Amino acid sequence: MNTLQHFLGIKGLQKELLLKILNTANSFITDDGKAFKSVPLFKDRTIVNLFFEPSTRTRSSFEVAANHLGAHVLNFDTDTSSIKKDESLVDTFKNLEAMHLNLFVIRHSIAGTAELLAQHASPHVSIINAGDGCNEHPTQAMLDVLTIMQHKASFSKLRIAIVGDILHSRVARSQIYALTTLNVAELRIIAPRKLLPTDIDLERLGVKIYHNLSSGLVDVDVIIVLRMQEERNSDNSLPSKAEFYSEYGITNDRLKIAKPDVIVMHPGPMNRGVEIDSEVADGPHSVILKQTTNGVAIRMAIMSLLGNKGE
Amino acid sequence: MNTLQHFLGIKGLQKELLLKILNTANSFITDDGKAFKSVPLFKDRTIVNLFFEPSTRTRSSFEVAANHLGAHVLNFDTDTSSIKKDESLVDTFKNLEAMHLNLFVIRHSIAGTAELLAQHASPHVSIINAGDGCNEHPTQAMLDVLTIMQHKASFSKLRIAIVGDILHSRVARSQIYALTTLNVAELRIIAPRKLLPTDIDLERLGVKIYHNLSSGLVDVDVIIVLRMQEERNSDNSLPSKAEFYSEYGITNDRLKIAKPDVIVMHPGPMNRGVEIDSEVADGPHSVILKQTTNGVAIRMAIMSLLGNKGE
Amino acid sequence: MNTLQHFLGIKGLQKELLLKILNTANSFITDDGKAFKSVPLFKDRTIVNLFFEPSTRTRSSFEVAANHLGAHVLNFDTDTSSIKKDESLVDTFKNLEAMHLNLFVIRHSIAGTAELLAQHASPHVSIINAGDGCNEHPTQAMLDVLTIMQHKASFSKLRIAIVGDILHSRVARSQIYALTTLNVAELRIIAPRKLLPTDIDLERLGVKIYHNLSSGLVDVDVIIVLRMQEERNSDNSLPSKAEFYSEYGITNDRLKIAKPDVIVMHPGPMNRGVEIDSEVADGPHSVILKQTTNGVAIRMAIMSLLGNKGE
Repeated sequence: MNTLQHFLGIKGLQKELLLKILNTANSFITDDGKAFKSVPLFKDRTIVNLFFEPSTRTRSSFEVAANHLGAHVLNFDTDTSSIKKDESLVDTFKNLEAMHLNLFVIRHSIAGTAELLAQHASPHVSIINAGDGCNEHPTQAMLDVLTIMQHKASFSKLRIAIVGDILHSRVARSQIYALTTLNVAELRIIAPRKLLPTDIDLERLGVKIYHNLSSGLVDVDVIIVLRMQEERNSDNSLPSKAEFYSEYGITNDRLKIAKPDVIVMHPGPMNRGVEIDSEVADGPHSVILKQTTNGVAIRMAIMSLLGNKGE
Repeated sequence: MNTLQHFLGIKGLQKELLLKILNTANSFITDDGKAFKSVPLFKDRTIVNLFFEPSTRTRSSFEVAANHLGAHVLNFDTDTSSIKKDESLVDTFKNLEAMHLNLFVIRHSIAGTAELLAQHASPHVSIINAGDGCNEHPTQAMLDVLTIMQHKASFSKLRIAIVGDILHSRVARSQIYALTTLNVAELRIIAPRKLLPTDIDLERLGVKIYHNLSSGLVDVDVIIVLRMQEERNSDNSLPSKAEFYSEYGITNDRLKIAKPDVIVMHPGPMNRGVEIDSEVADGPHSVILKQTTNGVAIRMAIMSLLGNKGE
Repeated sequence: MNTLQHFLGIKGLQKELLLKILNTANSFITDDGKAFKSVPLFKDRTIVNLFFEPSTRTRSSFEVAANHLGAHVLNFDTDTSSIKKDESLVDTFKNLEAMHLNLFVIRHSIAGTAELLAQHASPHVSIINAGDGCNEHPTQAMLDVLTIMQHKASFSKLRIAIVGDILHSRVARSQIYALTTLNVAELRIIAPRKLLPTDIDLERLGVKIYHNLSSGLVDVDVIIVLRMQEERNSDNSLPSKAEFYSEYGITNDRLKIAKPDVIVMHPGPMNRGVEIDSEVADGPHSVILKQTTNGVAIRMAIMSLLGNKGE
């Protein structure tokens, strides 16, 4: 546990560490589940939200988590246009670090940016990856597995399907690493051929690939619906919205193929009527808002585990 | 009093509630009037400023008020372009609510947005309307009546004139509801015919309409000058600035028509030389900066009255 | 000392006051130099960052400093387009002042803006200039002299060279006033003829002017490299980047002309490969990140010295 200086990605993390994060997150939720405990672990400290991509929910979730830990939040929103080169991005980071700031949450459109800053970070400084290009979004994956853990028995008995645009999804990559590390019984990916990633050895990880939604949903306990990320569609790899909905959209009818107590998840923001029908999103199987709630607890947990070293 | 879950508009509120808000606001101002008391009613809580229209003063006023109550403020500024449909606006709101945030201040260019979110809010969540389209801006009206109350004897003896662009003014609508509920002796509206609203039954409310400024100002105790809102002039209903100034601009000369101790108010930001002359704005009858001061106290009061239920 | 209501510029300040600020700043740094002390001098107060020019580092530095003093920070970022006239800028300021806010940090692209607001400020309100056009950036100059003081013996024995675009540099103006007031042995300016300022009587201040870098660097203890400010190049007075680098860029080779223990400073953000080589910026003579660290301490010091009067 004493190696957790940064939280850059799920890939390569040990199962024990993931479980420790999950249990810590649960401990920050009050018994009735209606609030987060305020734990002043970061009293008088300033946490930096360094967001180089527009974000509202994730940034807010980190800010709320930081507030519950007693910290100030320095919001440093900017677009990549003002910081054009890796070199000056590092300069920006080193400058903030020189202000004796030692916990940075970073989001950037380029894969590997969090890792890059971690390489340049001083020994007492921690970096949390809040999404880097199409690479990883590890806090999202952790809140997803926390939500699954709260609703289902043991990971080792679960069939889980991730549906949609895997290719452009950093969320999916982090989920795949987390769920295989937690030894789920069966992890399925349901996607059109051209929306599969080429940078992960799915076979070696034991992930099953389906191109047909109806086949892929048979008997699953959990459906994770991904967002159609049109903003990353520079290669025009995405199908039309109507086409995607007709082949891969999650509807109440298609839910019947899965287990009767299936839960449906989505990282948000949802494209209703594209990858998910409103009846499902707002229906009894949906745990989508629960995911958002868990996001705050997970971020409190990760910050607190890093923070012990950060001080 | 125990029905104050939200604060969406003045319309329909009881006189007793308005007086309770006014008295609470006064109690948050120090005896010498030079500061606000710091009352940690919201210690460790996070209040959300959800602003879908550019705003500086109102947002700042709520943030200062929240700070005096011990709260963190999550600023969630965005333009409507990124949240195009009501549906996804509700999704955004429900997501923030899922982070166990329970007090939202909302401004939006579309009338009814605060009401819409209130309909979707969970029982323990409160919404304050900080301006919705041309509908209402109730905290502004409350700070205005607080300012009047501090300078004049009894509402029931006052003649008050609201001057200018009533049609586009959510401020005017809230003022009309507040001042008629508080039973002012006489409420006058002074405006060109085409800048009168069509959605309020002014006659039933007992409001007198004047098209001539000189007639309307006779013997008034209070003049409320409205801002020419060129940004809402999509229907080209506004006269030219010079034309408006010549017919309706408040000058020192025209002040002489009113009572000798008349006070002049303006919700800001002012168009000096259009609806108000600088001599008046900065002159001895102006209580315009006093309004701004009272804005913080009123917002503290409203938050604190909602907050008792919010926890 | 009791005259420090505002901090608008270095010009005209007494040596004793500069030394008091420097010593106060040092007192806010922990003995090991790795953190700032948290001193709740501004507990429950709200400090306003009123930035009319895009800024990240300076705004962040003030925010971090304010947090260490226990204050909330109200960030009021805007571009000049929304506040077009001095008159309405003053209105904006007077409105914020009316919210009983009494410490303002202001940056504006027009020289004299901080002074303008100070003229309009109420007696209990303080203004800190965080950069006004090409006029002054006094907190930057103070952090620079603090950095020099920490690395060198006595100001009266130092030869210091400021290199680059003096014409457009508010930093350089403030440095010149600070360093001459502190009676450095020799202050040199090294710049092409067309990048010299015309509004300072350098001769009367005893500043020596060099147009040749190699001559100017002989035996200096401190080199202050300025940023090429292409954003202020409306008069096309700047040379090309390559041209500037070849004649005035600070390289390891050129450092050898200076004293062996020379320190190199830069206010940031750096244009690496233009006014400074990366080998120098990241090399053993560089104290550039130390400057950033000192920026927080200096801003804490200045706020705290103003703050004693501000309450």
